[in-house]
Order: sequence, then structure tokens, then C-alpha cells
Amino acid sequence: MTTIAYLGPAGTYSEIAALQYLQLIHPDLEADPSRMCPYPTIPQAINAAEHGHVDIAVVPIENSIQGGVTMTLDSLWQSESLQIQQAIVLPIAHALITRAHALTDIKVVYSHPQSLAQCQQWLDRNLPNVQQIATDSNTDRLHNVAEDATLAAIASQRAAEIYNLPVLKFPINDQPDNCTRFLVLGRTATTKGTHSSVAFSLKRNMPGALVKPLLVFADRKINLSRIESRPTKRSLGEYIFFVDIEAPIDDPNFSEALQELQSVTENLKILGSYAIA
Amino acid sequence: MTTIAYLGPAGTYSEIAALQYLQLIHPDLEADPSRMCPYPTIPQAINAAEHGHVDIAVVPIENSIQGGVTMTLDSLWQSESLQIQQAIVLPIAHALITRAHALTDIKVVYSHPQSLAQCQQWLDRNLPNVQQIATDSNTDRLHNVAEDATLAAIASQRAAEIYNLPVLKFPINDQPDNCTRFLVLGRTATTKGTHSSVAFSLKRNMPGALVKPLLVFADRKINLSRIESRPTKRSLGEYIFFVDIEAPIDDPNFSEALQELQSVTENLKILGSYAIA
Repeated sequence: MTTIAYLGPAGTYSEIAALQYLQLIHPDLEADPSRMCPYPTIPQAINAAEHGHVDIAVVPIENSIQGGVTMTLDSLWQSESLQIQQAIVLPIAHALITRAHALTDIKVVYSHPQSLAQCQQWLDRNLPNVQQIATDSNTDRLHNVAEDATLAAIASQRAAEIYNLPVLKFPINDQPDNCTRFLVLGRTATTKGTHSSVAFSLKRNMPGALVKPLLVFADRKINLSRIESRPTKRSLGEYIFFVDIEAPIDDPNFSEALQELQSVTENLKILGSYAIA
Repeated sequence: MTTIAYLGPAGTYSEIAALQYLQLIHPDLEADPSRMCPYPTIPQAINAAEHGHVDIAVVPIENSIQGGVTMTLDSLWQSESLQIQQAIVLPIAHALITRAHALTDIKVVYSHPQSLAQCQQWLDRNLPNVQQIATDSNTDRLHNVAEDATLAAIASQRAAEIYNLPVLKFPINDQPDNCTRFLVLGRTATTKGTHSSVAFSLKRNMPGALVKPLLVFADRKINLSRIESRPTKRSLGEYIFFVDIEAPIDDPNFSEALQELQSVTENLKILGSYAIA
């Protein structure tokens, strides 16, 4: 039985993505709560998969508005055994969940910093004097919201259903085309899929040296669908680059590119080859 | 008299950087509090400079551990008039500020999400069951900390001095080599300095197209000291790239590169030419 770690408690977008993945691998199966393992933070969910406490972790990697999820990128670089099994793109639509009957009754809004940021203009317009409190996940404080009608939370409509709470406004995200890409991480090596991901640091401590790895792909007409930098944390100006490639890892052209990539990078990590749902 | 916007209240690292800048341009001057204009968020500080309410905004752009400050990058891309006047690199050392006499007396720790993240391992080890509350700035809740000995905040030693509060532990950041780069933004066009910054989006919606702009610099042996991507917020997979160049903008070699850059980018912004202090 596949067990799945995700950023909980239940009702987060991570849980929705995890349930979609379960549906994908076991289409005939009813969702089984004993498979679903909520963790309080993204690094803890990733560690659980890394150390075999669960089979799989489903974690957000990139939002179309807020950009890369730095915790996931950093944990992925540090991981020694995890490979990307699958990518899942989920549309994000935020609901204002509260027992208040009017916006003027609300004193506090809880949510994850990413969700608060994705609704910032709506909050500035509609709840300008309300205290915004950042939480570890969107659903962290729904039990408080249930008990006090001056409190509100920003989370998914599914979260409102699970906790049996009313939705006062929906959708409240500033950009209608808001979506998040999630990664399914597991300890099985993957070689099949339409996309691949690698990460590397550079021999010369200069981002200008990035031109060589990029040429390796450009010379072979291999398309990149994403590039993102993170600090090495050694010193300012040294970066790790995460690159998504529109090719399966067993494509001979791509295998050749990977070999050449070894010679122009300091540390090269193959993060996996996978399909996007 | 130069007026300066920064992320306040007083005692933030942004204020320390702003005071260093004042010292740099007016070495003979005593720090004059009427010049210093605290704002509750980074975008508000940047807007104040953009719309002429102040002369200058001093804002963080990148931390060696946490990476780019996305709010600053996004505001800079949207700005129509601001140019980088100066960069300031500041070592960051966090203090645990509290009236508690022992760690076991602390129930809540307040700080900016970046500072909480920079002390995460220390917090996990030393205050594992303490609630961490994210705030808009490090110094937001020091008045609460002053009133209640079960509360603590993570901020600079200078903040403890200003608010006349005791430091229980110092330093508590996980990485000793923690530093943040700040930008001084103003409406004056700048053409002198050792470094320049540009930002661009690409004509083809593919990061693989990034190889062309990078080749423009590589072919001319112009070094890049940083590259960072942000989503365009239009759709997943479209990025804006921020590039720092180790050349003054009036260098003929670099001017030529900029002209060629126009032809291989969709939208090119010159963010300024400046010295690093």
C-alpha cells in the first residue's frame, strides 16, 4: 500500500495534489485515509520519504505567481535518494473561510505566506485593517476559525467542506490564472517520462559560467521549460541551478548532453524523469 | 535633505543599511531622524521612492542563505522610474531578544519569515515547542516583547538597544556567514559604478532561449555576478531574468552588448549602474 506524505493538515492544496496522484496510480481505489500522512512542514514531508517512513512525498515546487518554493528546491538538492516520479499542475482558487457574516466582523486572517501573498490586493482592498497572521499551512488554524467568528482563514473550498465551515468569499486570489506545480518524490529511480530535471553547481563561482551548461542543451536543440537559481549558502554570488528539460532521460540525444554536462558543472544531480499530469 | 524609505520600524537590518548609506554620502553628518522614513512593507517603501514621497528607498534584494527577496525583484520590474544608485552588503547576525530569563520561559517567537528561516535549526534545537509567528518586519512586535516576558523576537542587536530590551542569546543564525545585499533606489539615472543590473523577459516563452542573452555577454568576456528568475505571473513557465554584470554601463564593450541584448529579449530594463559598499 502506497503511503503519501504531504503538507497538512487535511484540506491543503498539497493534499488535493496527493489525492490526484493516488487516483492516477490506483484509478479503481476509494481514497483511503490510512495512506495519507500529513506533516507540519514541507522539509519534514520530504524527509519522511527520504528516510522510508512513507513511500512518496507530494510537495509544491513552483507557483505561477509566487515563483519557486525555496524549501522544496533546497530539500531536493540535499536529498540523497529521492527522484521525481510525476509532476502535477493544480489550479489554485482561494476561499475566505469564516463564521463571520460580514467582512467587517473579521479581525484576523490566517494563511500560509504564499496564499496571503496571492490574495494581497484583495486583502488590501477588502480587509485593509485586519491582522494577517502567517501559518505553516493553509489549514493550520481552521479549528480556531471554527470557534471564533472574528477569525478567518484563506484555504481551498475542500478545506471548508472538511472542517464544515462556511465560505464567505470565493475566489479571492488576485490573479485568476493561478496554478501550482507539485512534484511526487519517491526512492525509486525513474527513467520514463516526457520531462526530466537536473540541478547543478558551477566550477567557476560565476553565473556567467552558466552559459556553458545552457549551450550543451542549445547545441542539441533540447528545450528547457524552466530555470531557477538558489544560493549555495556558502557565500553570496554562488548558485545552484535547477533546470527542467523537455526530454525523457533515456533519449540518446539527452544522455549525450548529460555526459557533456558533467564536464562543465561542479556537482550534477539527476532529479528524475517523469510525466506531467 | 535626502529622505530615505526603509522597512521599519526602527532597528531592522534595512534601517542599518539605510544609515550606512547616509554615512557614505554625508560622512560629516550626524544621523538625522527626520530623514529616516519607516514603511510597513518593502513594496510600500519602494512605492514611496517611485512616487517622490521620499528621495531614496533602501531595500534588501538578496540574502546569502535565503536567496532573492521576491517582493523587491517584483517591485523593481514594475517600477517605471527607479534606478539602483548603490549596493550595500551587510553581515547579518540575529539576536534572541526577550525579557525571559531562560529559554524554557519563552512561549512565542516573533520575526520576519526570512529571519525565522535563517535561525530554523537553532529554533528546532533550542525552542522546539515554541510557537513561531511570522511578522512583516523583525521589529514589528518588540513593543509586545517589552510587555510580556513569555514573548521573544529575533532581530538585530541594534534593535535590542533601541527598544531597551535584553538579548538572551547571540548570535543564533544557523550559518555564521550570513549576509544580505541591499539596494539603494532613487529616481536619478545612474551611469557610473563598477556593476550594472538589467532585467528582461524573453521573446520565445522558453528558458532555453536564455542561452542567447547569456552568449551576448560570454562572447564579449563580460562577467555576470548573479542571475535570478522570477515568474512573469502570466502563466507557468514564463520568466523574467535579473542579471548583474561586472561592468559599468558606460563601458563601450558593455554598451554594445546592451544593444545586441535588445534584439534577443522581449522587454529589456536597465536597472542602473552602481558601486558596491
